[in-house]
Parts: sequence; C-alpha cells; structure tokens
Amino acid sequence: MKEINLHDIDDIALGASLLGAGGGGDPYIGKLMTIHSIREHGPVKVLDPEEIPDDALVAPIAMMGAPTVMTEKGIGVTEYKALYELVSAYCGKEIYAFMPLEVGGINSLIPIAAAAQLEIPVVDADGMGRAFPELQMMTFAIGGSAATPMALTDEKGNSAIINTITNKWAEDIARAITMTCGAAVSVSLYWVTGKQIKEYAVKNTLSQSAELGKTIRTIKNREEGTPEENFFRETGGYKLFKGKIMDVSRETRGAFNFGKITFEGIGEYKNRVAEVEFQNENLLAKVDGEIVATVPDLICLVDSETFTPVTTDALKYGKRVYVIGLKCVDLWRTEKGLELVGPQYFGCDTEYIPVEIRSKGGNI
Amino acid sequence: MKEINLHDIDDIALGASLLGAGGGGDPYIGKLMTIHSIREHGPVKVLDPEEIPDDALVAPIAMMGAPTVMTEKGIGVTEYKALYELVSAYCGKEIYAFMPLEVGGINSLIPIAAAAQLEIPVVDADGMGRAFPELQMMTFAIGGSAATPMALTDEKGNSAIINTITNKWAEDIARAITMTCGAAVSVSLYWVTGKQIKEYAVKNTLSQSAELGKTIRTIKNREEGTPEENFFRETGGYKLFKGKIMDVSRETRGAFNFGKITFEGIGEYKNRVAEVEFQNENLLAKVDGEIVATVPDLICLVDSETFTPVTTDALKYGKRVYVIGLKCVDLWRTEKGLELVGPQYFGCDTEYIPVEIRSKGGNI
Repeated sequence: MKEINLHDIDDIALGASLLGAGGGGDPYIGKLMTIHSIREHGPVKVLDPEEIPDDALVAPIAMMGAPTVMTEKGIGVTEYKALYELVSAYCGKEIYAFMPLEVGGINSLIPIAAAAQLEIPVVDADGMGRAFPELQMMTFAIGGSAATPMALTDEKGNSAIINTITNKWAEDIARAITMTCGAAVSVSLYWVTGKQIKEYAVKNTLSQSAELGKTIRTIKNREEGTPEENFFRETGGYKLFKGKIMDVSRETRGAFNFGKITFEGIGEYKNRVAEVEFQNENLLAKVDGEIVATVPDLICLVDSETFTPVTTDALKYGKRVYVIGLKCVDLWRTEKGLELVGPQYFGCDTEYIPVEIRSKGGNI
Repeated sequence: MKEINLHDIDDIALGASLLGAGGGGDPYIGKLMTIHSIREHGPVKVLDPEEIPDDALVAPIAMMGAPTVMTEKGIGVTEYKALYELVSAYCGKEIYAFMPLEVGGINSLIPIAAAAQLEIPVVDADGMGRAFPELQMMTFAIGGSAATPMALTDEKGNSAIINTITNKWAEDIARAITMTCGAAVSVSLYWVTGKQIKEYAVKNTLSQSAELGKTIRTIKNREEGTPEENFFRETGGYKLFKGKIMDVSRETRGAFNFGKITFEGIGEYKNRVAEVEFQNENLLAKVDGEIVATVPDLICLVDSETFTPVTTDALKYGKRVYVIGLKCVDLWRTEKGLELVGPQYFGCDTEYIPVEIRSKGGNI
C-alpha cells in the first residue's frame, strides 16, 4: 500500500472495525471527514515502517472519548493542525508523519484525515494491533516508551500538553480533560522515532485493515466454498460461536462502557449458549460456561449474513452473528504485554491461554 | 518592605487571612513550608511593582484545590522548581520574579516559599487584592490578560500546560486536572510583564498583609482607646455585626464549599440576627434581613476577643466574632470588574452597592 485514496476508505474502515474487537465505534463520521480531507488535499502517502528514518519524529494520533459525541459536536477543522503545531513546537522538530494509535473504526481513519490535511505521510502501523480502552495499553509501553508528553486539542480551540510519571497517570489526567472538554478530544501521545516504530509498533495494520475490508466486501463473490469457509480461511479467524443476541446488559462506570452479551446458538450451535464480556472492547468469550478466548486476543462479532463487524455500541437483540477469535500480535503475549492487557488486568479471573488453544482451533 | 525574613511570616499569614475574606484556608502548612524555605535559602527579596522592568516576566503562583489536602499529601519539594522550568521553557525566557495570585492564608505564603527556593524575588502585589474562588476572577482579566498559558504541577511529578479560549475554560480544565491529581496542585497562570503589573495588579498587598498582621498581633498593646475602636480605625474596616455563630450549613457542589452562617447578636447587637453566605469566600452579609455588604467588597470574620481572622473552614458553633466589611480595590468596582466578581455573578439577586454605603459607615 503506497497511498490511500478515496476508494480505499471504505475497506480500511470495514477491516479496522473488525480488528477493533468490538471497540472503535461507528466509523461513519470518520469516513466523512477522511473523504472530505482527501478530496481537498489529495491522496495520502503511506510509509512502510521500514522506510522511516531512524531519527524521524512520528506522532500517533487518535480521538479520545466517546465516538458518538463526535457526530454531535463535530471534529477535525482545526484540531489536527493544532496538534501538529503543539507537538512540533514542544519537540523543536517538525513531525515527519502521523500514525494511528490503535486500529478501530474511527481511530484508523483519523490519522489518515489528519495526514491529508497537513499533507504529510501516514505510517502503516499502530501501537495496539487492535483497539484497547486505556492509553497505557500500547506496544510502545512494552519497549519502555512513555505515553507523555501528550498533546490534547478540542474543536473549540482549547489545548493541553501533559507530562506524567506513569502512563496510568496520563490516562487519568487526559480522561479528566476529555470529560471537561465535552467527552471527545483529539490526542497525540507516544511520540516515537522511526527506530522505535521498527522495534515496537504493530506493523502494516492499515494495509491489513484494507485487505480484511476487501475480504468482507467481496466474500460472497468467490467461486468455490461457502462464504463462511472462505471468511474464516481468509481472515485467519477462529470460529467461537454462531448465535442470536438474546440480551445485552450495559453499565457506564467512569469513562467506560462495561457490559455482557448473551447469545443463543443457531446452526451447529443450536441448544448451546455463549457470553461475551466487554469494556468498550470485547474482553472474554464463553461457550456453555467454558472460556474460549480472552484479551489480548481479539474477540470480534460479525453479522452472520453480511460478515460486517458488529461493534459494542451497535449490539441489538435478535441480531445473528458469528463470534470470532483472532490472534493478537506476539508482543502482547509476552510477560510485559500480559501485565498491561492480560485478562487479569481487566478483572477476569483467569490465566491467559492463546485463542488457538482455548478455542481448539475453532472446532468447539 | 524590602525583604521577607522569618519574623515576617506570622504577620503576613495573619493579615492575609483577614484579606482572604473567609477563604485561603489555614495557613499553618504554608507557614511551615515558608519558614523551612527561608531557613534553607535566606530572606526573600521583595520588589515594589514600580521597580520591575516593563518587559520582565513575572509568574503568579498559587495552590489550587482544597487547602486541607495539603496537610495530608505534602507539597513544595519539587513543584515550584518544576513550575519555574515549565514556564521559563514555554516562554523562552527566565522568570524574573514570582508573585501571589491572590491574598489568602496559604496563597500569600506559597509564592514566598517558592521564591526562596528558587532564589528569585517576590513582587509586593497580587491579582485579586483578596481571595476569590475561581481562576478568571483576576484584575489582570480586566486588563484583557488571559489566564492561559497556565502551568500545573503536582507533588508526584505530573505536570500540564493548558491553553484555552476563555478563562472560564481554563478554570474548568484546571479544576478537572486538580481533582484527578488528588485535589491540590501548584499552578502558575496570568504570566505577566512588569508593565501589566504596574497597570492592573493590586499593589502592595504583601506589605499590607504584614501591617494588618502586626495590627492584629499588637492590638491590645495600645495606650489609648478600646481594642475594638483601635482595630476598626487601624484596619479601615466597617463594623457590620458582632455575634455568636448559631448555625453553619455547608454544601459541597463541584469543587466548591457553599454555605451559610447564622449569627445571634451580642453586645450592642443583642436581639438582632445576621447571616453570611459563602462560596469558599464570604459573598454576602445580611443583618436583620437587610444586605449590609456583598462581593467584591471583603466580608471578614474575626474572633471578638483576639481579632484573629476566622476562615470558612474554621467556623464553629458558639464562636463569638465581629463581621467586618473592607472596601475592595477600585478595579473591582468598574463595570468589567463587577461582571467578573459582582454579586450577580455569584447568584446573589442584588445590585452591587459599595460597603461604605450599604453599611452606613459601619453604624447599623
């Protein structure tokens, strides 16, 4: 992937929604903004991590807060320029490229829109390889990088730069600022060098998103096999369950959406039940009471007919879905990685066992 | 006043507590810190506003949050150096002097302690001439100065610089950061030049505090007159009431302490009643239902025996006090001043009428 043009946006949004593991929100407003930015400024140059000079300054950017709020309060007219200027001034060095902080419906698109507006490249990588609910949950943190200095800007013109002693403090202070500024702001953190990206980024997740999106979009056009077979083969996903959403319980605690989805099996899963627990993103999946996948592996829901990803904010009674497991990157499976994003960090009382073992290869 | 030495601290704290108008908290911890800093670094040079070069950078500093928290979490080992470095780096210019943001038990002392630690002078002035509960309530704001850029540091090592479109946004975002960092942080805002201080600061409030403190400390040593007569003559205060505290109602809303004090008259006020409403600082005083003083004039309580100021966090049933009115500076009596800190801003349904008229010269 050398550049991102208008026709790539839908696929990237679709694939990123799958990798968002339930999080990342509805990409609709992000798509509009990205399309508008590319129309105005032209295609965005995409850099493979290996192409970046070791000492180049790369700023991961994202929106922080509630994706639904963006549709109400607008975003993106001045924030990214403000971020660019804040970070460049603070570092005494111009930003070489933007990069996604995480993969997700909105947060994969925002860096593309911002890069278009500033006419700089975007890096084909991110710091999570999926979406996670908290700022300290970055592969760069495994490499010892700190979240701060971190810049925040809102659509009104307010901004902040924070410096904290731990990444958890950055999360807490940034969250407080976000809530005060109306529940959604633009942020840049984990300012990294080309060298750090080569060592600790999750690579090529923009092109992976585009490919997954294309797979989903065209899954019914194959000449051989069923769409289901083709989908699992092409995505590398493990089939954890197929069922109908029977219940969704939700609870907002702090700045997060917690909840549990209950499924009743259909097809070969008839008379069986499943549950998925989430905190913004899906954390843990159980079938008939047995755990079949946990964070940091990706637990994703897709519509059983269209294979479109279903995020936690679009759950509906009666919707028929596949529950899918995808392997997370190896960095998350290290001791340091599991400290940051293992099931126990999220309060799930279980050890991490990789999804390929938990799910018995998807043949449950 | 050319310098501040150990023996000046008690008087400044005492006088500043009076000018704090009920706010500013217990200066005990501020005194300890200031004494310690002067012992270690020597006396602090005091600058008259007229002595400051027009282009010198002066940083008003203060603690923001709940004064009571300071006694628990400690303060002052690294925050002021961090503030000094943050502000100097941001402005590309070393800070020439610190200055109090407001007059009050703790916030008059903190800039002295900080100036001692950094071995720079402190300016004999402040930005309120009293204490007020919100950041935008500064005489510099009348002159068009903005609160931001504003720096915040905590005792753990976290810091932030914020830039906002209005002073009210600065208040809101800084308040959110303060609450997250444990309800008390050190702040520097309204970074001003020598010229701005000459035009819009409330001048000589450190020396005024020291003199008022000395008056209170020695009020019983006069050869002529009663202590009461001498106190009102020497302080220029208007006697609004003398009574016993019968009731204190308190309510914490947002980051503020709201409340009402009810008094039963003693002495010449026997069989009369009074009320004082407060939001951190005293806002409005009524005697027998008639308003006798409102913000921005100062409404102060002092012990009827010792003339020691009684702050809103030290109110106790049965305490006998004078309720005193003191004229605020003329800047607050302008149209712009009253917009910021007039009775109506605080939700009191009345026009501002100066205390010397409201109180009929203290002969109610």
